Amino acid sequence: MKQRTEIATLGEFGLISHLTDALEIKNKSTLVGIGDDAAVLDYAEKQILVSTDLLLEGVHFDLTYVPLAHLGYKSAVVNFSDIYAMNGTPKQITVSIGLSKRFCVEDLEEFYAGLKQACTAYGVDIIGGDTSSSLTGLTISITCIGEADKDKIVYRSGANDTDLVCVSGDLGAAYMGLQLLEREKQVFRGEKDFTPDFSGKEYLLERQLKPEARKDIIEALAAEGILPTSMMDISDGLSSEMLHLCKKGNVGCRIYEERIPIDYQTALMAEQFNMSLTTAAMNGGEDYELLFTVPLVQHDKVSAIKGIKVIGHIAKPELGAYLIARDGTEVPMVAQGWNQLSE
Amino acid sequence: MKQRTEIATLGEFGLISHLTDALEIKNKSTLVGIGDDAAVLDYAEKQILVSTDLLLEGVHFDLTYVPLAHLGYKSAVVNFSDIYAMNGTPKQITVSIGLSKRFCVEDLEEFYAGLKQACTAYGVDIIGGDTSSSLTGLTISITCIGEADKDKIVYRSGANDTDLVCVSGDLGAAYMGLQLLEREKQVFRGEKDFTPDFSGKEYLLERQLKPEARKDIIEALAAEGILPTSMMDISDGLSSEMLHLCKKGNVGCRIYEERIPIDYQTALMAEQFNMSLTTAAMNGGEDYELLFTVPLVQHDKVSAIKGIKVIGHIAKPELGAYLIARDGTEVPMVAQGWNQLSE
Repeated sequence: MKQRTEIATLGEFGLISHLTDALEIKNKSTLVGIGDDAAVLDYAEKQILVSTDLLLEGVHFDLTYVPLAHLGYKSAVVNFSDIYAMNGTPKQITVSIGLSKRFCVEDLEEFYAGLKQACTAYGVDIIGGDTSSSLTGLTISITCIGEADKDKIVYRSGANDTDLVCVSGDLGAAYMGLQLLEREKQVFRGEKDFTPDFSGKEYLLERQLKPEARKDIIEALAAEGILPTSMMDISDGLSSEMLHLCKKGNVGCRIYEERIPIDYQTALMAEQFNMSLTTAAMNGGEDYELLFTVPLVQHDKVSAIKGIKVIGHIAKPELGAYLIARDGTEVPMVAQGWNQLSE
Repeated sequence: MKQRTEIATLGEFGLISHLTDALEIKNKSTLVGIGDDAAVLDYAEKQILVSTDLLLEGVHFDLTYVPLAHLGYKSAVVNFSDIYAMNGTPKQITVSIGLSKRFCVEDLEEFYAGLKQACTAYGVDIIGGDTSSSLTGLTISITCIGEADKDKIVYRSGANDTDLVCVSGDLGAAYMGLQLLEREKQVFRGEKDFTPDFSGKEYLLERQLKPEARKDIIEALAAEGILPTSMMDISDGLSSEMLHLCKKGNVGCRIYEERIPIDYQTALMAEQFNMSLTTAAMNGGEDYELLFTVPLVQHDKVSAIKGIKVIGHIAKPELGAYLIARDGTEVPMVAQGWNQLSE
């Protein structure tokens, strides 16, 4: 049986020390990490990027099927993704956790193990945070700080008419992974040992439970000398994010359904679930892929990069934002992203 | 009756726009605020301070008697206080909010009104955040970023033997304010209109509901050319914080009970409640005053500053940390601060 150490045995300060004592500082911009009223950073001539995310149990994650180590990893990575989406490099995070009595020290160790694994993989320092009791469930708030060269930051607003619209990786898999986990949760409800068979569907689960941020794509673009005109990460679904780029850039777009990258497992699962594959890819959310635009002249250069696909182009604003279906019909794009507040 | 607009009518993005559209950027270090994947800052030759706080309903605040505008103000100010405690200046905050269906748009407007009032008073920009639904209650996570001159940052660790221990303002009032509010809540439980008479106790309520960060003290010290050897803000009570300074600086201390600054209303209230006044001042918490040490030679200079009181001195580590009571007895200092996790 798993050991259970009550958090009360350590107390707040004890718990923080226990979890963070062995943290090694990796970045020279991190002068002082955990242990004072504030962390101290020095970014010299670089500009500073700041992004923050709040994750609440029952809303953003379900601990029935999300292991705490995966949750720690994912919580960190989704924040890194925001910094990469500005063409920056994540360097530091602060981590605040609110937790009810249900959780023990070993749970927190597991969460921190995942968090640290992500920070090691992406070269990020944990520089501070806050740990508190909560009346219900688990609350996670992460703020990520990153650096960027002054003239290399890419905003959501820079897309121009005729620019190519590009996307990294493939879409819809994280959403299908979630559907799969939800289905199994229903099937196994009430049973003691929750060990469904996920063989052949590992990719979908990994995309949902342990996503990665596209550091590699940012590095590949830089190596090729490509500076996107606009960029953001896909957390709420391609439709929603594409509309953001159009609105911010005051442009329209045409996205070709047949060009949207979809993994084989995603397609298979959509068929099994009798769901529209395009809907999953357009509105699924949690892909954490990069959506960006580049000038038309860079077509060959950008197409040659592994893991990037050109899916359409930017148009004049009066032409609107449309998806061109496989049969040639034009379907207006609608944001159906993960807007829990309007549910 | 108060108007009630359901948050669903605006949705997440609509709500964020509604609350943040009129935000004016005040600091030249804030290049881009809300609206992209990350905010963009430029700190040039300054060093960067980062601090974060998580506030949970039912644990850190009780909306029965805390107006949302006050909560917004206090949430911001307690973060500013951490930055001042490093001898820095707060410049930006990110604000993440999780809220259940109980809350409406007007509630959020009220919270933001308080938040903005604090930011205006202290010259701080709101640069980002996250708004999400929650299953229960209100969750607030704020990260504050500030600047400091490279050679002027004051850590918790710098206290030396014979240094003077100084404190700003007075202690224990916020704690007595909380006791007062809790008592009235019990008395009025079940009654419809909660309008207790707080006349003559306004200071205690203000200290609890609308605390201020000691920007003025940081400025006064700078004007006098005094750079503390160690400093922190008092959020968990003087005992707890003094032990932090001793532990971090590897020193002991002697604090004189008779020198601890206490307001008249605090003393009166402690008598009414039949509570130990010294306990309230030593362990009460939420004072948000500054506790700092200065070299002995600066005694006259620091004593001359309005709002600062010398309450004791640093000693060799082997002498331990003691409170010298009015009758001359030495009482070992114990941290009884607000450690909810060990309750």
